[in-house]
Formats: sequence, structure tokens, C-alpha cells
Amino acid sequence: MANPGGNRRRSWWGWGWEDQVISGEQLTRLGEAVATTLGTPELELWPPPRLEDLTLRPSRLTPPESLVKFCSADSYSRAAHTHGRSFLDSVRAIHGDFSAPPDVVAFPRDEGEVAAVLDWCASAGAAAIPYGGGSSVVGGVSCEVGDEYRGAVSIDLGALDQVLDIDRVSRAARIQAGVLGPALEEQLRPHGYTLRHFPQSFEFSSLGGWLATRSGGHYATNYTHIDDFVESLRVVTPAGTVESRRLPGSGAGPSPDRLFLGSEGVLGVITEAWMRVQNRPTHRASASVQFPTMADGAAAAWAIAQAALFPANCRLLDSGEAATAAGVTTGTALLVLGFESADHPVDAWMARATELCADYRGVVPDGVRTSSTEGAAGAWRTSFLRAPYGRDALVQLGCVAETFETACTWDRFDELHHNVDEAVRRSFLEVCGGGTLTCRFTHVYPDGPAPYFTILAPSRHGNQVSQWNEIKAAASDAVLANGGTITHHHAVGRDHRPWYDRQRPALFADTLRSAKTTLDPAWTLNPGVLISR
Amino acid sequence: MANPGGNRRRSWWGWGWEDQVISGEQLTRLGEAVATTLGTPELELWPPPRLEDLTLRPSRLTPPESLVKFCSADSYSRAAHTHGRSFLDSVRAIHGDFSAPPDVVAFPRDEGEVAAVLDWCASAGAAAIPYGGGSSVVGGVSCEVGDEYRGAVSIDLGALDQVLDIDRVSRAARIQAGVLGPALEEQLRPHGYTLRHFPQSFEFSSLGGWLATRSGGHYATNYTHIDDFVESLRVVTPAGTVESRRLPGSGAGPSPDRLFLGSEGVLGVITEAWMRVQNRPTHRASASVQFPTMADGAAAAWAIAQAALFPANCRLLDSGEAATAAGVTTGTALLVLGFESADHPVDAWMARATELCADYRGVVPDGVRTSSTEGAAGAWRTSFLRAPYGRDALVQLGCVAETFETACTWDRFDELHHNVDEAVRRSFLEVCGGGTLTCRFTHVYPDGPAPYFTILAPSRHGNQVSQWNEIKAAASDAVLANGGTITHHHAVGRDHRPWYDRQRPALFADTLRSAKTTLDPAWTLNPGVLISR
Repeated sequence: MANPGGNRRRSWWGWGWEDQVISGEQLTRLGEAVATTLGTPELELWPPPRLEDLTLRPSRLTPPESLVKFCSADSYSRAAHTHGRSFLDSVRAIHGDFSAPPDVVAFPRDEGEVAAVLDWCASAGAAAIPYGGGSSVVGGVSCEVGDEYRGAVSIDLGALDQVLDIDRVSRAARIQAGVLGPALEEQLRPHGYTLRHFPQSFEFSSLGGWLATRSGGHYATNYTHIDDFVESLRVVTPAGTVESRRLPGSGAGPSPDRLFLGSEGVLGVITEAWMRVQNRPTHRASASVQFPTMADGAAAAWAIAQAALFPANCRLLDSGEAATAAGVTTGTALLVLGFESADHPVDAWMARATELCADYRGVVPDGVRTSSTEGAAGAWRTSFLRAPYGRDALVQLGCVAETFETACTWDRFDELHHNVDEAVRRSFLEVCGGGTLTCRFTHVYPDGPAPYFTILAPSRHGNQVSQWNEIKAAASDAVLANGGTITHHHAVGRDHRPWYDRQRPALFADTLRSAKTTLDPAWTLNPGVLISR
Repeated sequence: MANPGGNRRRSWWGWGWEDQVISGEQLTRLGEAVATTLGTPELELWPPPRLEDLTLRPSRLTPPESLVKFCSADSYSRAAHTHGRSFLDSVRAIHGDFSAPPDVVAFPRDEGEVAAVLDWCASAGAAAIPYGGGSSVVGGVSCEVGDEYRGAVSIDLGALDQVLDIDRVSRAARIQAGVLGPALEEQLRPHGYTLRHFPQSFEFSSLGGWLATRSGGHYATNYTHIDDFVESLRVVTPAGTVESRRLPGSGAGPSPDRLFLGSEGVLGVITEAWMRVQNRPTHRASASVQFPTMADGAAAAWAIAQAALFPANCRLLDSGEAATAAGVTTGTALLVLGFESADHPVDAWMARATELCADYRGVVPDGVRTSSTEGAAGAWRTSFLRAPYGRDALVQLGCVAETFETACTWDRFDELHHNVDEAVRRSFLEVCGGGTLTCRFTHVYPDGPAPYFTILAPSRHGNQVSQWNEIKAAASDAVLANGGTITHHHAVGRDHRPWYDRQRPALFADTLRSAKTTLDPAWTLNPGVLISR
């Protein structure tokens, strides 16, 4: 993978920077705290894997001479591109399971090289796996492609990391798809701009990955989905390059961009996009609103979403999340409410939103904070971005620790929440003997919320995979049975396929297959993701 | 077509209700006024066509017994479904050109009957033309399908006109696709709701038509496109029925709905949709802001769009439009600015927007009007909705009278505006000896406006079609050459095909063709629209 951190090195097996990985004394203390929370005996600490212990299967592919200069088959590159960053990936990694590494990792430096790799893969009968930041939590970058392929090539877009053009009049930027979040923001900052898209994977995910998976940013309403920032795309497919016209809006046929948004690398490799950017916010107001119950908080979030106030933040935490994430241990639900603007003070907006909260028994013990700097929002984001390091630590401690998410219409929410909660608790009680489950809203729409669940359960090394698979199936079945989507912003990948196959209309799958056959006649790209032959 | 007006009858040849058609003394006075405006001698008034003068070619198709009860081949039905409502359609109609009528008009009363008609068409080698309100201005409902088909069946969805379900919690409604605007709003009103989607064709266009053409409502920003109100769709295709899951948001693969939005009837017949509805607005503020130049007004609209204030109205009229549509004859450009909310007073929003206008030399001579009723906005809408009757009258007077529209990023707007203006004026000077051209913004985005142009030029009966075709080609070439889309909200149909074919990525057209072959193997649906075999 690309190494935008200068002297820092990306962990080849887990989340993030090697020097940020939780270890030593810190890890021991975490183990004690978790054992107390879960009421289990001491947790067994498994050491992180060592690259020198790995024996990767020999590479089955040799790139042609013309591609050699940007291809690699060394152990670090192959190991680092073997897994994404799901709980299952993390478990496999610390147990040294690197049984399906890519045979070659390509680091193309321009579109021509992307096309050349695709050509080679098609002619060699190999699978091509597009790789952005490698942060997939759904098996989206896995190279486990099956015997019908003669090998797998991971295509790491990390070298395509430049903002190529800024259009100050339209407030838009032409950006290469391989750029990771921080490098993108760094290039926009001197112009006073931001893409204002901050998924939790922000540090280690790429623009192309966000586009290919329909990423949701951490803002709660309106402009938050990456989909809505797209003016045009360039996509290299095995059949040729697709470029859509740069437009602020259009009604000329079905949107070409919307075919590629969410296509998860099965139709082509997104190489470039014109994206709407925004001025950096200068006016802010935030408030932490406490509610007697989650239902009261949900009703307030409902009212705010339907009032078209468009808060930047409208994150409802259940009492469990309020305690762990915000230190509110009074058993109340917490709505983290925030407004931002680059143009005007947002007092009127916040005043109306807190009025609506009061209608549903919400109180604001600390009052509304206004500020021109990021303050609390920035601090929250930092801790939000650090959470995945904790997940890897919990894996080392032998726990089951994962999140899943969905969205549903408001009329289904109470039942979905209740039934998912029940199904998951029943499942982890059965398979792990206990656990905790918490819920928050990551996004709210006028017609429904996006609930996000976090599971922590005691397990033991060797059982984590099978236990999680059982819990995940119970969770996914309950989500689907209660009107949810199998994913609101984590994507489908390979892991969500059984439920996605039930959710999507069968005839739509057929059209997707026919589109793939048109753009990728040899079915070279990302086999197993979204559709199968 | 369905006749939702009770005793009133729809005009079978032109826009709207027969009793609203401009005629007699009113038409004579309009002719005098137009002759003065255009500086031409008296205009020759052509009488409207009479049904009894028509001799339609004999129907080439006989529906099977099982379909007879909801099919018709009488002259009124066939004539009324021959044309859409473009300028060209209107010219052909008043000149009695009904050379390509449907052979049969089907009025299915449920999805089963829609599917049965499609089956019959496929087996009979006939084309099937979905027909909603019949208001297409791009040849989208034309039955001129070519010799490879043994005939054409117009499928009028007018009987599918019910709101089937209301979900008060999620604020959404399940609605049959054939319902026209007024009947839809009538059914939502008792619940306090509105779809709040008012295209100019509102009275005579259907939900299904809006969805199939990615209709733009008359609101300027944010929630205005029909696309953004869709929770899920039901679509009957020759291969079977597609139903997407009802969701407020989802990242599970490419959006199935987005494949059908804008598909203009070539992939299937939309029969039903869950739509997000809204509470009826109770707070309003509006202002008419005058600017020395169109460029000043455009800069203010730009600033307002980028400030994320989300005005309901932000309609910039050039001096020509300001004079004809708003009686402002001082040569200034006019920005019609409005905010609406069902939840809160909008003073803070309007105050900031008028501040931004002042930054660009905007003045508000009559001050800001606030009101809880529709007032001026309602009056404006009424006159907006009546405009198409005037267009038909101008056709009878032998003029060229049509509109065209586009969208472009802000960086292209000045040049696009200048070059389109020049190309069109050159063209109508050449082919008609003169004319007028005006421009307004129908929608504004943070990254660009949607300019809408109105042409009026002197012509004469017999020349209107060829003259318009020449002017339209000049306009469309200039739009495309200057970064615009061939259509922002009028759709592609058959008339925009040459430019759409140049605009869309070639490989996207290939995927659309493959999707069509999957869903409509015999290519029964709407041949010639969007794609060809």
C-alpha cells in the first residue's frame, strides 16, 4: 500500500499506523477493563503476527516486462494486500492466516497503467482486485477468488493521489481516486476548501473507495453521502474508459455516475472524479441533549430531520453508547447535535432544533456551545477515527468485537431496534455466554434513521471466526426481516452477499450481470463481490 | 387519456382542458400583441383541428379477447395519444398531421393488465409506448416506431391514479404511477401532506412520467428533483416485475431505483412508488430582488446556492423575462427569492439571502413579504401553469415558440449564456428574420445553474417545423459545445437523441442496451427513445 505518512509505516496486518497500534501496558489495562465489563475471567492476549513468521504461497503470476516496474511480489506488499480491515480480517491476520494473498500487487501511476494491468489480467485469466485504502470491512478487497482464476492481482491505486484541478467558480475539484482522506484535505486546505467527507475510515480510505462503496460521511443529514458530491467520473473498464460529463445536475437518461457509485470495483476502476467541495465552516453551534429514553431521543431526531434544519451532527446514542463514548452514566440517551456553516451564524437553526428536543423531554444540561473553531467536534472526530485501533486490540484479547449498521423507515425502527437487539443478545448469549450491544444513529433522514450497532462479546482464540459468523447471521437476518438494508454505508463486498442477494430485486441483479459482461467481458474484476456469474 | 376533470374534457390535440384553450377575441388580441413585439405584419391565424376532419390510418392490431375490455381503437383515443405536447407536436396537430397514431390505446387498471399488454405486444411484434399524462415535449410518447414493428400500442396509465398507503411516521406515501399532479395533491391534502413537486406540466403529467424522466420541480434548490423523493419503485418489465426495498437510504450496491429513474419507459413501466412527502408549508418569505445586470444576479444566485440556505425559489429572470413575466420594465434582472417551511419562521434565512444579494448590487424595492399563505407564490404558479396554453395559441398564429433548457457548472455559464444567445439569435435571424430570446434560471446548485431559454420568432404556417428544427439544432449544438447537458429536466425522448448520443459515454450506452435486452428481450418498449439496437 502507499505510505503517505513519510517515515511512519502502515501496519501490514491491522488498522492504521504501526506506531499507533495499542500494545504493551496499554493493551494489558484494556484487557482488564474489558474482562470487568464482560464479567469474564482474564482474557488471553495473543501477540501480533510477525512478517518473518509468514510463509506466503508462491506467486502464481509473472507480470509481463512492460508492467514489472510498477508491480511487486514481495512479502510485505502481498501480505498487506491480503485482507481488508473487518473483524474477521483482523482475527485471520493475528492468527497468521494469509492463505489467499494476491500473487502480484500492482501500483499503477496513471490510467494507462491501470488499463494495462486489466488487459494483462484478462489475458492471463487472473482476477483483478481494485484496492484503495484497504479499509473494507466486508471482504471487498479480498483475493480469495476461487479456482476458476489462475491468480489474483491487487491493484493499489495509492499512486494516483493528486488534486489535479480546482475550479474556484463552481467550487469543485478534479481529484485522482487513489488519494486518502488526509492527503486530499491537505491539498484542498490552501484553497480554503474541504470535501467535508469524514467516514470513520477517513485516514486509510480513498476517494475511489468511497465512490465505489457509496460511503456515508460522519455528518448526519443532507450533504453527507459521497454520491451527492459527484459531478463526473472517469472509470477504466476492461472494455475501455468511461467519462461522464461534468454537470451540476442533469435529466439526460439514467445517471451514468449512479451505475458506478456502489459498484464496488466489479464494473471498472474509478480513476478520477470531479467533486463538489465546500468552503471550510467558520460558524458552529453544538449541544448535548439528554433524553429519558432512546425512544424520546429518536422522536426528537425524527422531528429535527423532518423540519429540514439539516444539522451537521444529529447522533443519537443509546444509554450504553452515552456511557462509553461520552461519559454520560445517568442511563439517559444522548443526542449530539451540531450545526455548521461557512456562511452565516447558525443560532436560529440550533434554537429551533433544541425547541424540538424539548418537545420530546430533551434537556441540555451544558447549554449550547457556539464557536468558530472545531473544538469539541474536532476532539470527537479524533477519538472516532482512533476507534479501529481499539477493535484490533480487542481481537488480540480474544473477544468478538464488531459493528454492523443499517437504515430503515421510521415506521419500522422501533420493531427493528427491538428485534435486532433481541436476536443479537440471544445469539451472543448462546455462542459466547454473554456480551454487550449498543446502538447509535449515524445518519437521520426525514423518512428514517441509520442505526449503527456495536457488539462486544467474550470469546476465545480459535472460536472468534465461527462465533462471529453465527452472531452476524442472526443480526443480518433480523435486519432484513425488519425492513432494514443489509448495509447503509459499509458496502456489500463478499461478506454481505447472502443478504444482499435476498434484498436486491432479482431482475436488477440480472441487469447488473449484463452490465458487467458488457464492461468486463472476462469477468476479471473483483469476482464474488455483489454478483456472480 | 384519463379524464380526471369530471365534465371537463382534455383537448385531444393541444395542451390542457378544452374550455381553457385560448380562442376568439383573446386569440386575436394576442396575435396583435405578438405582431407588435416581433415587428412583423399581421399574423395568419390557423384554426384548431377538428376531430371530424381526421382520417386516421386503420388500426393494424387487434387486441386478444382478454384485453379488449380495457383497450380502445376509437378516433378520439388514438388521436389524443398520437402526439406529446412539444411545439412540433402542436404544429403537427393543428395542421392535422396524425400520420402515426397508436393502433390501439390500452388503459390497464392494474399491474396484471400492464403485464398482459406487454406480453401481447411482444408476441404480436408491436411496440409498447408508456403514456402518463402525455405532456412530453421531446417526442417521448410518440408512436412513430418504424417498420420493424407491426404496430404501436399506447399504454395509458391514467387508471392507476390512487394513493394506496400513507405512512404518517415516516411521512411517505405509496402512490400509483398514473396519477396526475392535481389528483395526487388532492389525495395527500387531507393528511396535511404534499409531494411538493410542481413541474410546469403539473396538471397534465403523472408521477410515473416524472420518475421516468427525472422531472425537476419548480423549487430552486435541494429537495426539488423527483429522484430525491423516491423510497422504492415497482416496475413492470417484459421480463417480470422489479420491486426495490423501501428505504430512507442505502449503500447496498448501485441503486436499483436510479437505473429506472430517467429510463423514459425503455426498461419497463413504473406502476407504483413509495414517495417521501412533506408537511404543507406554513411559513413563507419572498422578495423580488432587482439587479443592474444578469451577471450581478447570477453572482447573487451563486452566493446563495453556495451558502446552503436552500431557498424554495431562486429564479433569476433576465431583463426580457422580467418584463414579460413580472412587468419589470426598467431593464434590470430580477431574482425571485422565496423561503418556505412547515416548521419554523424563515426570517433568518431570508435575511442572510438578501444580505448576499446586496453584496452584488441587488435591491429589494418592495421589501420582504412574509406570509403564512401562498399569496404571490400561488399566483405566480397559476400563471406558470397556464403558460402552455399560450404556446399553443402562438402555434396557431404561425410563430416559432418553444423553450429549451440545460445546466452547466458556474465556470461555464457566462460563455454558455453568451454563445447560446448568439447562436440562437443568428439562427432565427437567418431562418425567421428575427425573434426574441430570453433566459431564466429554473434551478441553482452550489456548482452551477440550470438556465432555461424561451424563443419567440415570426414564421409562417408550413415553415414552422423546418425553421424550428434549424434553430433547435443551433441551440443544442451550442449547449453541448459549451459544457451544458442536452436536458436538465425536459428529458431526452426521440427529439434530443442526436445530442444525447454525443453527450453520454459510449460504454454507458452499451450497458443501457444490455440492461434493456435483459429486461425487454424483444425491445418492445418505447423504441427510439434513449437508445437504439
